[in-house]
Amino acid sequence: MFKKILIANRGEIALRIIRTCREMNIKTVAVYSLADKDSLHVRFADEAVCIGKAPSSESYLNIPNLIAAAEITNADAIHPGYGFLSENAEFSAVCQEYNIKFIGASPEMINQMGDKATAKDTMKKAGVPTIPGSEGLLKNMEEGLKIAEKIKYPVILKATAGGGGRGMRIVNNPSEFKKAWDDARQEAGAAFGNDGLYLEKFVEEPRHIEIQVVGDKNGRVCHLSERDCSIQRRHQKLVEETPSPVVSQKLREKMGKAAIKGAEAIKYEGAGTVEFLVDKNGDFYFMEMNTRIQVEHPITEEVTDFDLIKEQIKVAAGVEISGKNYFPNLYSMECRINAEDPRNGFRPSPGKITNLHMPGGHGVRVDSHVYAGYTIPPNYDSMIAKLIVSGQSREEVITRMKRALSEFVIEGVKTTIPFHLKLMDDESFQSGQFTTKFLETFDFSDI
Amino acid sequence: MFKKILIANRGEIALRIIRTCREMNIKTVAVYSLADKDSLHVRFADEAVCIGKAPSSESYLNIPNLIAAAEITNADAIHPGYGFLSENAEFSAVCQEYNIKFIGASPEMINQMGDKATAKDTMKKAGVPTIPGSEGLLKNMEEGLKIAEKIKYPVILKATAGGGGRGMRIVNNPSEFKKAWDDARQEAGAAFGNDGLYLEKFVEEPRHIEIQVVGDKNGRVCHLSERDCSIQRRHQKLVEETPSPVVSQKLREKMGKAAIKGAEAIKYEGAGTVEFLVDKNGDFYFMEMNTRIQVEHPITEEVTDFDLIKEQIKVAAGVEISGKNYFPNLYSMECRINAEDPRNGFRPSPGKITNLHMPGGHGVRVDSHVYAGYTIPPNYDSMIAKLIVSGQSREEVITRMKRALSEFVIEGVKTTIPFHLKLMDDESFQSGQFTTKFLETFDFSDI
Repeated sequence: MFKKILIANRGEIALRIIRTCREMNIKTVAVYSLADKDSLHVRFADEAVCIGKAPSSESYLNIPNLIAAAEITNADAIHPGYGFLSENAEFSAVCQEYNIKFIGASPEMINQMGDKATAKDTMKKAGVPTIPGSEGLLKNMEEGLKIAEKIKYPVILKATAGGGGRGMRIVNNPSEFKKAWDDARQEAGAAFGNDGLYLEKFVEEPRHIEIQVVGDKNGRVCHLSERDCSIQRRHQKLVEETPSPVVSQKLREKMGKAAIKGAEAIKYEGAGTVEFLVDKNGDFYFMEMNTRIQVEHPITEEVTDFDLIKEQIKVAAGVEISGKNYFPNLYSMECRINAEDPRNGFRPSPGKITNLHMPGGHGVRVDSHVYAGYTIPPNYDSMIAKLIVSGQSREEVITRMKRALSEFVIEGVKTTIPFHLKLMDDESFQSGQFTTKFLETFDFSDI
Repeated sequence: MFKKILIANRGEIALRIIRTCREMNIKTVAVYSLADKDSLHVRFADEAVCIGKAPSSESYLNIPNLIAAAEITNADAIHPGYGFLSENAEFSAVCQEYNIKFIGASPEMINQMGDKATAKDTMKKAGVPTIPGSEGLLKNMEEGLKIAEKIKYPVILKATAGGGGRGMRIVNNPSEFKKAWDDARQEAGAAFGNDGLYLEKFVEEPRHIEIQVVGDKNGRVCHLSERDCSIQRRHQKLVEETPSPVVSQKLREKMGKAAIKGAEAIKYEGAGTVEFLVDKNGDFYFMEMNTRIQVEHPITEEVTDFDLIKEQIKVAAGVEISGKNYFPNLYSMECRINAEDPRNGFRPSPGKITNLHMPGGHGVRVDSHVYAGYTIPPNYDSMIAKLIVSGQSREEVITRMKRALSEFVIEGVKTTIPFHLKLMDDESFQSGQFTTKFLETFDFSDI
């Protein structure tokens, strides 16, 4: 087992990793930028090294500084957390070169899953359902019509150079095809100077549902069931829960099997997440695979009594897994508490926390690096706490979450707490019937 | 269900009860003494009423003031928490008179279990094992010898007027009896002016193990397994855990059955705890029954996913229980964090908390009413937090507890944290092999 792990990250995840290391009797090295010198992760690590100025490029993304810190402190492994260099193939490779174990994916795996087209191809070959569509650009409208017939309507035409919804058209049946084709081409040409289109099956009422997997050095992979992350604002997850209100045990097993198949195909080692879109019929399609720990991993821990960071460290050290899959025996939900103003487009609200009381009691977990008197620096992402609540039913979790949110006192900065309180009272949310587009029509004005 | 509950208590248990009431959509009324006006339970309750000055007799023990507060706020029930009036038959009776539901035992039940001799008799008649011995005073030595022969050695002679170990002698076999008899009589006569002796079976290597029960209005009772509270200093529990390292599943079922039998015999309604002494052979003897929620109830909640306060409120409102028993599916331990100086005989250390960071993360629960800037008043008991840690094995719980303790920052007052840290490293404690006398020989000097 490792003797000393350097944590190439900051904030709650750095603290989270220190916690597990302590429980495993592994020494820890914190690294920090000048903006983070008063952070708890610095205080709680066994050693701490300043690696540069506040901009991430000069500290948390600075590979030479990180490697130097590991060399100086004699760390035998690096945990990258999430974000920053956690999915950076170069960093993973440099660690290898310096004989420091990178607790994450190999450079090859990061590259393979980091490129979306390669990832999709790999998964498709492994038998994981992917969104059907054209192989690249459509030659002409007739080819589009033929493919749409085959993969069944509705389909979506997308500009190859596109983005932000431009050059995109949903087509519900063959009679709509010509107009959609012409419109999309024209729009794409005007917007991007490139009117090339490709076609995909349109996923109706999509939900973002991901499967947690863990693989070991022998290529054995297990899954830990799903997390439903459909509550997103501009692709930023705000609330995650497990089990998903729309995933039956049968679908869970099917998705779990598919995720394992995909991970096995690339001999995946470590903790990873296979993200799927699930449509209204319960059909699911591979989106991408994250080769790192996810922000929302605690909800899986709460329902499986499994420490995922511990598992990451163990498999990185060569420990084999049992191969048993884990199914939820409770319900759990996470609200991301960000220092943002939900009344003003979630504008970041850094500053000093003048007063703080975190909720506690039965079924409540808080992962956070902040304290009363702490100043949130403006340089990094605005998440200041993860509020994780568990219970015996989704209803219990929602009422407990309301209780915990109403008990959470953070003064001095604006936070997303009022948004979460409103969400918990929303009937569509309570019903469990919502899609990834739910927040697009959510009224933030009266929060 | 109740609409509004007045909480006749303070500190962490008041906050604990508010939490569950919120989750049940029941309004809460906090009461507070002048010394507690800045307490969190006052802030988090829906309403708050000042009931008098700091001395408990003028506030938390003042029945007229409490009833007045309930009448003014229109509360339809009172939760007494633990301590204060929670086992006061008069208070229970006055609540009845005023048609306010007392969430606890009836006056009769409190009286029956409050008097130790009556409680022991009642349990004995119900078939619950009690410590065998003489019926009251021994007439002469011959009677003592006869009883000792019957209940088997070792036995203990005790002065009826005794206390503090004086007039007490352990007798291991008949040949020791005469000397012990003479010595105990002489010592008792000299110390108390009364040389009357009685005799009991001497419980060897005793452990304090208690069974949580819940009964409903129909007299149906279930148990929620045991808590081991053997780590005590001068009869003050400091650490509790479940399951007990010395209780097998067979013993658990046996003790659970006995506790249910005892509770059924008195038609026990509500949450209660039957305390036993368990000897080295796994024989167990009734000590007493507490007709209230216990300080250490959270460890049972963590291993059964059961909210005991919710259950108390439900059965008080007439909801029936299923009758199913609950067995631990995890391990859990509680450390009582008191504002006391363990280096100086656990002397209370009230004062202002200047800096505070509570531990968090997977498997960690904190029940506490304090915050940075809070001043601990000198008037009440010194417990400022309960640190409850859960995990998949006792070893995992101990390492996690160490991690959580080492992360707990409380500045401005002395606390029992250093004692707990030393205890977690103690080999006897780690082995699970210790008795209620463990702390009598514990070295507090180098904490």
